Amino acid sequence: MVRTTFIELNSRGFTDIVDITESVRRAVIESELTEGLAAVFVPGSTASVTTIEYEEGVIEDLRQAIERLVPSDIPYRHDARWQDGNGFSHVRAALLKPGITVPFRDRTLLLGTWQQIVFIDFDNRPRKRRIIVQLVGE
Amino acid sequence: MVRTTFIELNSRGFTDIVDITESVRRAVIESELTEGLAAVFVPGSTASVTTIEYEEGVIEDLRQAIERLVPSDIPYRHDARWQDGNGFSHVRAALLKPGITVPFRDRTLLLGTWQQIVFIDFDNRPRKRRIIVQLVGE
Amino acid sequence: MVRTTFIELNSRGFTDIVDITESVRRAVIESELTEGLAAVFVPGSTASVTTIEYEEGVIEDLRQAIERLVPSDIPYRHDARWQDGNGFSHVRAALLKPGITVPFRDRTLLLGTWQQIVFIDFDNRPRKRRIIVQLVGE
Repeated sequence: MVRTTFIELNSRGFTDIVDITESVRRAVIESELTEGLAAVFVPGSTASVTTIEYEEGVIEDLRQAIERLVPSDIPYRHDARWQDGNGFSHVRAALLKPGITVPFRDRTLLLGTWQQIVFIDFDNRPRKRRIIVQLVGE
Repeated sequence: MVRTTFIELNSRGFTDIVDITESVRRAVIESELTEGLAAVFVPGSTASVTTIEYEEGVIEDLRQAIERLVPSDIPYRHDARWQDGNGFSHVRAALLKPGITVPFRDRTLLLGTWQQIVFIDFDNRPRKRRIIVQLVGE
Repeated sequence: MVRTTFIELNSRGFTDIVDITESVRRAVIESELTEGLAAVFVPGSTASVTTIEYEEGVIEDLRQAIERLVPSDIPYRHDARWQDGNGFSHVRAALLKPGITVPFRDRTLLLGTWQQIVFIDFDNRPRKRRIIVQLVGE
């Protein structure tokens, strides 16, 4: 059985990191499925999904690491061609990839105690986003 | 239901980035499945799969970012031991990981408008590659 | 059909890279499934799963690349707040992400000849770990 649902949210962009665990959990509980995979996937090329301990300190550590690895203040060819100014957003999203797949059982996501599912918006402006949660199981 | 198909392509190596969206789309359309997960996975330890806006500028930006993050011109122990010269390829592939899982519905991949699925060949020579597309759904 | 199993192991932490291919293979063989997805997922926010050629040289190359990209010897806000000393572990795990999804067919993981599935423990101490292997298929 397959159930496809959506999470809608407003993000601020600029590596805004949003905890979406409760929304994914609700998608599982509101389905008839008890065991299977929850694919969390962002359609779009300037955002990503991963997991982290959603704690203010490490959230800022992750933001700084990403800025160090893929700086926003160096020239990007994407910007030279399209004047979007979000070349760094595209590169970050391609490296962090658009989704994750989380197993669930007994209607419960099999996450660690301190592990949350987060959406990261790398774009250079606020965005209204629709994230896909697709459940495949029984 | 599960359907496993393959994409065959020739790549040039050296972070060749190839748009495979149409091939994945075809695998979905040619299956009897209407809704589920498309796992796109590269068997091999010197290549990866991700998504990006397939636009010449940002493709080159991604290539340069990868060269900056995992340089090809520093010594690797893999090369010292095996004389393969592709130590950087292995490290890049391990960091970017071998696959992604994309949801589809109504026989349509749920990608963003400017989001393409790409195969990245990190190896240091041209390769004939076979990428797996496995559909799981109903 | 869905089958959820677990791999238990002791790791040393500090980017300990452990080959778990045989355990995942066994999970497939011991299930009744012949074709589908094997999701390998670590519950916890200081570890990851990827694939690599499990060879001593490239394992050390990967460890050095990760140390270069997310150094253990710079200050992290997580540590300032919680005195855990493992801020770098959290950032590494968020960037490398908690799992991978590997297709199998004819009860065989569709990996490359030199491609192994590895668990990476980024934490700053030895840990007893339980990794999830969830099979979805037929």
